[in-house]
Amino acid sequence: MEFNEHLKNIEVYEAGKPIELVVREFGIEPKEIIKMASNENPFGMSPNVSKAISDSAKKGYLYPDDSMFELKQGIAKRFDISSNEIIIGAGSDQILEFISRAKLNENSKVLMNKITFAMYSIYAKQMGAKILQTDSIHHDLNQYLEIYKRENPDLIYICTPNNPTGDAISKEEIYSFLENISSETLVVLDGAYMEYAKLKDKAYFVEPKELISKFPNLIYTGTFSKAFGLGGMRVGYGIAKREILENLLKMRPPFNITTLSLLAGIEALKDEKFVTESIKANFVEMAKFENFAKEVGFDYIKSYTNFITLLLPKGYNSSIISDNLLRKGIIVRDLKGYKLNAIRVTIGKPEENSRFFHILKSIL
Amino acid sequence: MEFNEHLKNIEVYEAGKPIELVVREFGIEPKEIIKMASNENPFGMSPNVSKAISDSAKKGYLYPDDSMFELKQGIAKRFDISSNEIIIGAGSDQILEFISRAKLNENSKVLMNKITFAMYSIYAKQMGAKILQTDSIHHDLNQYLEIYKRENPDLIYICTPNNPTGDAISKEEIYSFLENISSETLVVLDGAYMEYAKLKDKAYFVEPKELISKFPNLIYTGTFSKAFGLGGMRVGYGIAKREILENLLKMRPPFNITTLSLLAGIEALKDEKFVTESIKANFVEMAKFENFAKEVGFDYIKSYTNFITLLLPKGYNSSIISDNLLRKGIIVRDLKGYKLNAIRVTIGKPEENSRFFHILKSIL
Repeated sequence: MEFNEHLKNIEVYEAGKPIELVVREFGIEPKEIIKMASNENPFGMSPNVSKAISDSAKKGYLYPDDSMFELKQGIAKRFDISSNEIIIGAGSDQILEFISRAKLNENSKVLMNKITFAMYSIYAKQMGAKILQTDSIHHDLNQYLEIYKRENPDLIYICTPNNPTGDAISKEEIYSFLENISSETLVVLDGAYMEYAKLKDKAYFVEPKELISKFPNLIYTGTFSKAFGLGGMRVGYGIAKREILENLLKMRPPFNITTLSLLAGIEALKDEKFVTESIKANFVEMAKFENFAKEVGFDYIKSYTNFITLLLPKGYNSSIISDNLLRKGIIVRDLKGYKLNAIRVTIGKPEENSRFFHILKSIL
Repeated sequence: MEFNEHLKNIEVYEAGKPIELVVREFGIEPKEIIKMASNENPFGMSPNVSKAISDSAKKGYLYPDDSMFELKQGIAKRFDISSNEIIIGAGSDQILEFISRAKLNENSKVLMNKITFAMYSIYAKQMGAKILQTDSIHHDLNQYLEIYKRENPDLIYICTPNNPTGDAISKEEIYSFLENISSETLVVLDGAYMEYAKLKDKAYFVEPKELISKFPNLIYTGTFSKAFGLGGMRVGYGIAKREILENLLKMRPPFNITTLSLLAGIEALKDEKFVTESIKANFVEMAKFENFAKEVGFDYIKSYTNFITLLLPKGYNSSIISDNLLRKGIIVRDLKGYKLNAIRVTIGKPEENSRFFHILKSIL
């Protein structure tokens, strides 16, 4: 049977290994396993949120309020924007999917960083679009501009802080780049880890309100999966001018987040304190990773997120190290697939990090 | 800014009104509102499932096991098929979306019934495909065959029992139709309400195992949203031969159901008794609707589902009746958009149905 021709070029995204798989494959007890592979918030979610989910479990038989009225109101308030400048997705991933499907086709070009979130290229390939990439590990916006001028892409992705590297781009750099981009080109600014950058260094913080007002061709994407600790609930959002959103909304299926996810998002927005404290604890722990790296002679990328990329010196192989960690119940992300001899490690809770340091040392 | 040309022809699906909207618009207390618009299971979900969700709420910060190993095992066991003949979606809706995106393009044709699930045409339009429809309210498979021979569509939808009409097609009819279809044409058999048909009349029951073995060009879609009572959790599945699934899997985003939804699906499969009892109660209540219809002189479509379509006699307007019911806190589905002067009513709990009969009588 024939399917669309461009499907032949699509690889399937490989998600971080779940705890269940490690239990199945290596027979390790779940409580002995530390998942440091998918950048969830190790402190979980606000207790108010888990209580709300728990109390409302029985409501899961009802479809959610598909207008997502209250969640949009909460997001609008948080960012000082209008509710109709918001689109809700099953994670910000789904917003990226809507963007690809509304904007791209087999004649389109998409510009992105060499190493960045894998779904940008997967969604682009699903539409048969051509992918343009820089050749530097970090976002080099001068190179972006060069390629932009030469190729005139339809869509540009900026991921800051960037995943899977953890580095960020300053507001000043971003703004001066965007001033050169035509209003016909859609720019996605993926701020999945922006809450972390904001607390670490204000110079790296960009706000959706100002961004879309200065650059109406831009859509900002954000998520509840990271700082808000709702990874498994799948709630994200896009913020853009109505002209863009009206097109993306045509790609949104009804009931695209669950009833309990909707409730969780609404509740999560009411507990900003939990978010701030998680992030503060994250950076206290991050310093331990930096010290550990120096101690064992690893390089690392300065991170504005809840993970750190450890660059392995010659003589070490990131795939072997990841595999050996896995056999001891520690799941990290091997970046060999991104052509980096590096592992990406989610910053865990203090006791998890100590165990990680201990076990990693024991296998070096 | 330019978006894909065919977006201009896309309407946005209008979901059944949620309770929250009726509270907001009419100031009615939530406990005074009965939602009979979206065919959820009025008996909710199995208490074992809601307990499992409630107990695991805190796990919602972790991404789900993206292999969905245990859920697939449960579905495989239920249908006596292999785990690798299953794809999981956020409701069976998402399976329909994967099918459209993998199979359709601007040169494709899709054949479906005149009145059927609205998402078939919406997803087809999202791909710019041409829609072919029969002209009868019920699935007329002779007419399907005529159009098939003339137009050679790439994709055919059969929805049995059909939504929003509630009628079904017998196994015999379906099989004799499928024997005429080329193995190059993908056929979707949407069995969202199949559990109801199975209990009502075995002659209308088709099984995925036999279907895909006799007709390897067919994909069966099923859902946890109806008989299993997990509408708001968004879990559905597709069952097909590997050759088809490999293409659809390329369209599946990672983590496409939530951690709690995965858990809910796994638990729900362990309580078949809840499902059977809900369905039995549904048909006891359905008989009351049939009697009510006769009493007030309405016609209705014989239903194999958890809803009934009441056809209004001349002199009544389905939009006015729906609106008057809404003002009294009863949400039903007006079928005017489908060019039927009818309302679709989800069968509720006994006390809800009594109130519905009482209130509808009072406004006639």
